[in-house]
Amino acid sequence: MRDAYQEQLDNLADELAGMCDQVADAMAKATTSLLESDLQLAEEVITSDIRIDELRANAEEKAFALLALQAPVATDLRTVVSAIHGAGDIERMGDLALHVAQAARRRHPQPVLPTEIGPYFAEMGRVGVELAHKAGEVIRTRDLGRAEELERDDDAMDDLHRHMFTVLMDPAWTHGVGPAVDITLLARFYERYADHAVAVARRIVYVVTGRMPGPLAV
Amino acid sequence: MRDAYQEQLDNLADELAGMCDQVADAMAKATTSLLESDLQLAEEVITSDIRIDELRANAEEKAFALLALQAPVATDLRTVVSAIHGAGDIERMGDLALHVAQAARRRHPQPVLPTEIGPYFAEMGRVGVELAHKAGEVIRTRDLGRAEELERDDDAMDDLHRHMFTVLMDPAWTHGVGPAVDITLLARFYERYADHAVAVARRIVYVVTGRMPGPLAV
Repeated sequence: MRDAYQEQLDNLADELAGMCDQVADAMAKATTSLLESDLQLAEEVITSDIRIDELRANAEEKAFALLALQAPVATDLRTVVSAIHGAGDIERMGDLALHVAQAARRRHPQPVLPTEIGPYFAEMGRVGVELAHKAGEVIRTRDLGRAEELERDDDAMDDLHRHMFTVLMDPAWTHGVGPAVDITLLARFYERYADHAVAVARRIVYVVTGRMPGPLAV
Repeated sequence: MRDAYQEQLDNLADELAGMCDQVADAMAKATTSLLESDLQLAEEVITSDIRIDELRANAEEKAFALLALQAPVATDLRTVVSAIHGAGDIERMGDLALHVAQAARRRHPQPVLPTEIGPYFAEMGRVGVELAHKAGEVIRTRDLGRAEELERDDDAMDDLHRHMFTVLMDPAWTHGVGPAVDITLLARFYERYADHAVAVARRIVYVVTGRMPGPLAV
């Protein structure tokens, strides 16, 4: 009985880690669709978000069943509650990748981004995808050193995010209000995506140490 | 024993409902600080956000203790898990009110909004504050009719949000990129604030009916 229970806990963690990889994939594709005005890829991200929503509902149901049937305590209870939180954060990451893809679709066949802005979003995409994969790894391994890495990656994302505003506010900005509005929202989506990845890792730190790391600057 | 347990459940609900009123108050003050460039009011919102974070941590701890010590099942388990979600949503509403106040502080003594844009944000503030109070009421009363009202209020917020983009994209927009960037983010903060209030109400619908209402358009 106890073994089946442990297996259920492990399965739940595997599913969450798998969700991380899926939203990493979604953000990688969404970023490419944005940079290359690739409508088909954008549609793919938009369609597959339903799958991530289902996985979240499924994970939450399993967590719920564990609470109801096993009444876990101590570390196990923290694990299950963190899984409920994590599933929510990861689903939200999927939503944010979806928003990026929707922006690419909305402007298609026009590019959303002026040419010189592309590299910043390529980098935000790269950092975001890495954060999502690392969050999955932290769920799988409970490696606290790895969890700390996410904080540094998130700092890099914040720097990129802030830099976009500097670019937009520069008198040399010649692309007008429309692209500025798009870029403001898009940069925010990437930044929030990163925040949620960090939140997932922090919950694992809490599971392992029993203490929540300090609040995320939001 | 059973009575003390029921009392703990009721206390948890009361605390969450109280948090709703606090973030309603924060958004009301943040909106006034934005519309009237009131630095003191902005500072007040910024300072008091710590209190909301503490209340969230406190609510989550109580929910955790209930899970560990009482091992609730069925409706009670749904109530406790929903409280954990709800505390997260309400804290996030506080963060979004904080962001509005930070925008007011950042531009002070300059106004953030061009004069003709003020009324839209006054209305977004009004709808947001009402949503937060109604979410608190739904937690207190479990009134499903009231919960449905939040969906309609959220539609009104979405309309206001969409309308802001129409205003910004209009060739008649003469205020340039800076204010457009501020308004884009601010409108997003109000819209997300409303989404979280709806999410709180939807969790209560789930507690009462055992079924989640359809996903929120995000």
